[in-house]
Parts: sequence; structure tokens; C-alpha cells
Amino acid sequence: MKKKRVGIIGAGPSGLAQLRAFEAAKNEGLEVPEVVCFEKQSNWGGMWNYSWRTGVGKYGEPTHGSMYKYLWSNGPKECLEFSDYSFDEHFKKPISSYPPRPVLFDYIQGRIKKNNVRDYISFDTTVRWVNYNEETKKFEVVLDNLKIDKTYSEEFDYLVVASGHFSTPNMPYFKGIEQFPGQVMHAHDFRGADPYKDQDLLIIGSSYSAEDIGVQCYKHGAKSVTLSYRSNPIGVNWPDGITEVPLLKYFEGDTAYFKDGTSRRFDAVVMCTGYQHKFPFLPDELRLKTKNNLYPDHLYKGVFFNDLPNLIYLGMQDQYYTFNMFDAQAWVARDFIMNQYQLPKKAERRIDIDKWLDANEKLETSFDHVDFQTAYIKDLLALSDYPDFNVDQVAVMFKEWLKDKDENILTYRDKTFQSVVTGTKAETHHTEWMDELDDSKERYLYQEECEDGVSEAHEKERV
Amino acid sequence: MKKKRVGIIGAGPSGLAQLRAFEAAKNEGLEVPEVVCFEKQSNWGGMWNYSWRTGVGKYGEPTHGSMYKYLWSNGPKECLEFSDYSFDEHFKKPISSYPPRPVLFDYIQGRIKKNNVRDYISFDTTVRWVNYNEETKKFEVVLDNLKIDKTYSEEFDYLVVASGHFSTPNMPYFKGIEQFPGQVMHAHDFRGADPYKDQDLLIIGSSYSAEDIGVQCYKHGAKSVTLSYRSNPIGVNWPDGITEVPLLKYFEGDTAYFKDGTSRRFDAVVMCTGYQHKFPFLPDELRLKTKNNLYPDHLYKGVFFNDLPNLIYLGMQDQYYTFNMFDAQAWVARDFIMNQYQLPKKAERRIDIDKWLDANEKLETSFDHVDFQTAYIKDLLALSDYPDFNVDQVAVMFKEWLKDKDENILTYRDKTFQSVVTGTKAETHHTEWMDELDDSKERYLYQEECEDGVSEAHEKERV
Repeated sequence: MKKKRVGIIGAGPSGLAQLRAFEAAKNEGLEVPEVVCFEKQSNWGGMWNYSWRTGVGKYGEPTHGSMYKYLWSNGPKECLEFSDYSFDEHFKKPISSYPPRPVLFDYIQGRIKKNNVRDYISFDTTVRWVNYNEETKKFEVVLDNLKIDKTYSEEFDYLVVASGHFSTPNMPYFKGIEQFPGQVMHAHDFRGADPYKDQDLLIIGSSYSAEDIGVQCYKHGAKSVTLSYRSNPIGVNWPDGITEVPLLKYFEGDTAYFKDGTSRRFDAVVMCTGYQHKFPFLPDELRLKTKNNLYPDHLYKGVFFNDLPNLIYLGMQDQYYTFNMFDAQAWVARDFIMNQYQLPKKAERRIDIDKWLDANEKLETSFDHVDFQTAYIKDLLALSDYPDFNVDQVAVMFKEWLKDKDENILTYRDKTFQSVVTGTKAETHHTEWMDELDDSKERYLYQEECEDGVSEAHEKERV
Repeated sequence: MKKKRVGIIGAGPSGLAQLRAFEAAKNEGLEVPEVVCFEKQSNWGGMWNYSWRTGVGKYGEPTHGSMYKYLWSNGPKECLEFSDYSFDEHFKKPISSYPPRPVLFDYIQGRIKKNNVRDYISFDTTVRWVNYNEETKKFEVVLDNLKIDKTYSEEFDYLVVASGHFSTPNMPYFKGIEQFPGQVMHAHDFRGADPYKDQDLLIIGSSYSAEDIGVQCYKHGAKSVTLSYRSNPIGVNWPDGITEVPLLKYFEGDTAYFKDGTSRRFDAVVMCTGYQHKFPFLPDELRLKTKNNLYPDHLYKGVFFNDLPNLIYLGMQDQYYTFNMFDAQAWVARDFIMNQYQLPKKAERRIDIDKWLDANEKLETSFDHVDFQTAYIKDLLALSDYPDFNVDQVAVMFKEWLKDKDENILTYRDKTFQSVVTGTKAETHHTEWMDELDDSKERYLYQEECEDGVSEAHEKERV
């Protein structure tokens, strides 16, 4: 019998989790289907593969990456640790709880480099269109090899959509914005705080991007940072120089007018107004249509498209849990594909989805959100052999983290947590986050290895 | 017999020319095929439909527009005048030779508003994929209505690709650019000079964008503008404050190092490094693969895709002639579609294409380029009933324009030319271009109507 074929769209943390899940099965001697992964970027890592480019990439495709210079993890690494590949295994020593982007990218790569998963990935290849053939029950996928400008088609029995949902900006219009003289950009195109030094910066939004870009610009020398919220302020203890104001109503020249009647002149605007779930390559009846949400509708167990469960979506939730959630999802998806996990009937699945949607509706506080996603992870972990970990303890850490941020948005990254995978307590980092302007892996790891004397010498060099 | 169906991709100047061509035939009582035009933006005008957005648009599709605030025509309007709709007919009075973008947009709209062509256009609709069915000889086009998030298909006998080729940036990598602290963007995302006031700006490139963005930033108060060329400098008489240097080699921090061994610190970089011909919706065997070029290969008469002439490309040439060239092309395309113009056999077409390619190869000077495209326009005009105009005189004006720019890049827009359509001599504009900081249609046209006294009063208001 011909092997089943599985197509994976995207080689970011979710797509790589799916590849890793199949490798784990293969390593146990199981026969796995034929797997092909398509990645439009030239390297894996998805969002974690930093690009200096904005707008479109070198082949003219919309840029995937939304990350920027000086980005440090905004949650404890102990909350996202792979349960089958610990930070200890990768770094051979304890590191701090909030590493910068290059260090986390290194960690993601470490696990997959242990296997030959790179061979399964077609890089510089984007999916143009998918047609589901009702008769053959196969997905006909039109692909575009960007490097050689060549289109071709492949057929799959299963399609795993792991293309992320933090790449397509949502950018509302505000009256007068077309006449605002300064730079206007979405957070997706923000590549670092330096251009905003000594400037008065307006940030629109009140979620993670707004918080993190605002704090980074403050740290790197913006004259002032003003955050404009639609419904609720972020509401942490902001330092002098960062202010929250209600919703922007309109611009007149370089001046912004807010709902509370106040106004202020700005040099630049960064819109941290969220992202769209966007799947241009799918016919609309197969598209996941949702806002950013802890439990998007139409996905059984958060992954199986209920109208057509051979279509699998990974990582489409709003995220407290990240890498470990993608893993838990990918393992379940793998077991379904390999016939080791049977789905109930569609109507039963619908009832289960509704149960989660109802619970989601009732959530009020951030702590409720953490508990909800924790319950979801537990639900998933019960279905596969992905190595169990103490999810309740991770939830405790998430709540600590929320409190830390509330107390001091500038110092929460100096805190340390304890791994639920290895029990290792994180190191206090050599430099307080507010004083650390270099986010390179070399700087991060080098100092770790230093004796105090060398460390001081290095400090002097930097002055 | 069922009417033939024609699909047009794009409602910019080229797509609108095609619609207008069919309307002209209809107005003469001819039976025209069924025509549908798909436009991904919410309004017509293509490049001339200004958007403040950069990167992607409100529905997450790559932004089409590359235009910016304070953009004035960089060639005489007399060189692009529609021969069936004069500037006099539209504005009812003489205007200057170099109007700003909103004024030209108004002119483009004027002609098409005379007809009901808007009814043929599906706005907010993008083409996802095209399949040419060899058996039925039809194009199966997959469409995406962005506004209602709905995909659907249509079949066409002819497909006219009028999606432009100044929308997908070409952006080369330079060593160290990922560490450059300032803003790095492509000209495509440039929206005006204001953010560069008092800054040292590096512009990479030596074509129209580099020249125009450089001059605009100089005019609007950049501290310095440095243009870096690959092969040849623009070489006009630059004013103090604008300098040309050889190719950029690499960045170290905020300092750029050039091929001649010089280096300089910059605040920001704008890459005017050209655009890609990009047709993601076509299978690669139907894609026009070319660099920007006065005569792209594979197009008979510059429009008919030689392997499959029912596939028509409009406006794919590098452009001296613009609106009038698109018209001349669209009229010929229309006559072919309506069986009023027969194509020779493929091999003969190939010989004709090669003749033009050979001639193109031999061109040396800008004047040669003008003469080459002039000959091309004449070749087209002989094939259809598009109203004839004095193309040789337009060529003379292009050469004047080239000389004017060489002499003084800051004042060439103050010159005036005479229409070959109406014989009208352009007005000298009320304000010299270097002193005019307002590019609105109101300001442009209002002053025109003023008596001297009123004009002076208005001047005072502005001070």
C-alpha cells in the first residue's frame, strides 16, 4: 500500500514540532507517513528567524517575521520549555529565565538538529493554492519555488497548516493619518528602538507588542512613549516617560487627539493593533476565520478542522503556552494521522468544541486565561505520549510572571524560575535587563562563562 | 453564440485603458465581449491611488502603491496625454506641465467617469491563481473577494494582465545592514520626506526613484542626501547637499563604506533599487519573466504572450511613454480580442520580437531610448484606430525634458510644453516648484483661478 502523504505548511515552531513528532515515532521504530514541509523563508524558525527586511522579502512575498532587535523573551523560558529537550540539555548549564531572541532561536534549532528533519523541508517555497478534491479525498497543493521561479503541484492526504498568525498586520484607519508627517508603521515592521531615540512616540494598542515596544523604546532613549488603548489600559506601574491614554480619535498634522479630549504632538506612530489570521492559499470554506482567541471556533481539540479533520491547524490560539503547546498539538495530530488516535463523530466533536467556547466566554481575569489554557494543555497531553510535565506548576509560574510585570515592567525580566522538566533553577543574569543593550547570543553566553574578574574587564571595554 | 469573456487583472492606468478601449468600440455600435476587471484595491487608479499604508493593506495583501506625499509628475504631462481625452477637456483651462499626483489622478478619473466602466470592476478582489485549461482553451481564474472573505472561480477566453511592475520591491542585501540602527526601507514604502528632516539620508540607486526621493528630501529639509550608484551616477548638476558616491560595500553600525574607499555616517537608508516583475497568481510557464526593460522578451508587439497570445500583458515595459502607451497597447489588444486584428504565426511573431530585442540591445544614450520607444508607439498606432498624435513631437519633448533635468534638477518642473493633442501651451505655474510645499489639488487649481490680488492674499496666509 502506498504511504500516506502529509504536507506541512511552515517550518516555524509549530511546523517543526510536527516534524519532530514524526521523527520521535520513527525513532521508536514505527512506520511513519511521507512528510513534506514547505517554508517560504530561506531558513527555519518562523518568527524566530530574524529578518532586517520589512514589507516583502527578497522574492517579493510578504515578510513573515515580526521580531525586532533587542527582543527578549517576554515570558519565563520555563513556561515554554520542550518536555523532550530541556534548556539544560541544550546549553549544558543554567541560564537566565528571559533570554534574548537569538538564544531562544538557538534552543529551537538544537532539538531539530539532533534529527535530520531539515531534509523534509523545501525552503524558499510558498503555497499558492490548495484545492481539496472531494472524490480522491486529497489536497492538491500548488507550490511556488521562489528561488528558481518554478510552480508545481503535489497531492496530500493530510494538510497541516502551521503558518502562524502573527505575520499579517491588522491596521485600522484613523482620520488624518494620511497627513501625519512622521513615520507610521505597524509593529510587524518595527525593527528596533534606535530610530526613535529622542523622539515622542505614539503607540496604538494595549497588548504584548505595545507593552514590549513601548518599554524597549523607553529603554533605548525615546523622549516619551504614549500608549493609546481602545478598551482597557495595560495598567502596570509605568515609569516616568511612559503614559497611557484612551483611544486615538484623529490626527491633525502631527498632533493626535484622544477620546479624553487631550492631544499631543508626535514624531512617529507604531500601530500595535494586532494581526489577522490569514490563509490566502486556502479556499474560504477551509479557512480558519477567527480573531486572536484562546479557543478559535471550528477546531476540535484546537487543531482538527471540524468540517474536514484531515486539515489540521497548529498554534492558532492566542498564546500563554507556546512551544510546549505546539508540541502537545503536533503529537496528537501525528497520532491521528498514524491511526493511533481516533476522532469521535463530527456532532460529538462539535459538542466538545462548544464546551470549550462556553468556558472561554466566561473568562474574566488574566489568571482565568492561564487556567483555561492550562486545562487545554492537560486535555491534549492525555491524548498522546508527548512527555508529561507539571502543567499546574507552569500555570503558577505564569501567574507569578503576571504579578511581576504588574509590579515593575522594567525589572520583571531579572526574575528567575525553576524548570519543571529538569528542576534546574535559572541563573540570575550577569546584567540587569535595563542595563543590557546588547542582545547577541555571544554576549549573553560569554559573560555566563566568565570569572568575575574577566566579567569586569568586559564591562570596562563596553564603557 | 455565447459571448467571449475577457478578464482584466488590475484597474490602474493600463486596466482602465483596456476598459476604455472596449467602451470606445461599444460607443461605435460594435458588439463587445463580456469584460470583467478585478482590482485588489478599494478604488481604481493603481499606483495613482495613494495609500498611507505600507507593507500590506487593510486585508493583508501586499500594498500596491509606491507613491508618496509631495510627488509631482517627473515628466511633462504633454508626454502622457490621452489622445482621446485632453487636459483641456478635463480642466477647462491650461495648467502647468508638471502637476502633482492628485491632479493627474483626477485627470485619469475624468476620462473613465464619462463612461460606466466602474460597473465592470470588482474592487477589493484579488486573483489567487490562474489555470489555463488546454482542452477548453479557457483561463480558470481563482478569485478572492477580500471584503467578504470569499473565494470563487471564473472562466475567461482572454486574460489581460495589467497589474503593473512597480509594486514588488527588489531589495539587495548589504553586509551589516541588519545591524544598521536607523530605518531601512525600500522606496516602495517611502511616504514622504518629513521624517528625514535634519537627517543624513543614504539613498541606494540611480534611477527615477533615487533622483526624485533624493530631491524631495533635499527640498523638504534633509540635512544631507547621499546617492549611491552601482554602475553609473545620475550625473546631473546636483546642488550642495546632494552628493553621488559609488556603490555601497557594507555597513558597520551606522556607517556606510563605499567602493571608492570613502565612508559616512547615516541616520536612515532608502533603497531605490527597483522593482520585480511579479505574477504570483500565474503558473510559471505563463509568467512574464523579465527585468525592467524597454522591450521585455516573449511579448509580440509588447503585449501578446508569444506562447499563448490570448494572454495579454499591458504596460510591462520600462516607461518613457505611459498613459498613451497603455492606450495604444489596449486598443490593439481589444482589436485582437474582437477579431479585427489578426496575429501572424508564432514563428513570424518570434522574428518580430527578435528584431526589437536586437534594436534594444544596441541602444546607448537616453535619446536612443526615447527614439526606440517612440518607434514602438508608432508601430502600435498603425495597428488600431486609437486617435493618432504627433509622436515625433512627443519625442522632441522627452529630449527637452532630459536636457532640462541635466541642467537643473531643481527647476526643470517649472518649464512648460505644448500639447500635441490640442496645441495648448501649458501655463507657468503660480509658484516655483522648489517653493511649493503643498501638493493638494485644491492648492494647485485654486491659485490658477485667482486674480493677482487674491493670489497675494493667499500667499500671505501661508506665511
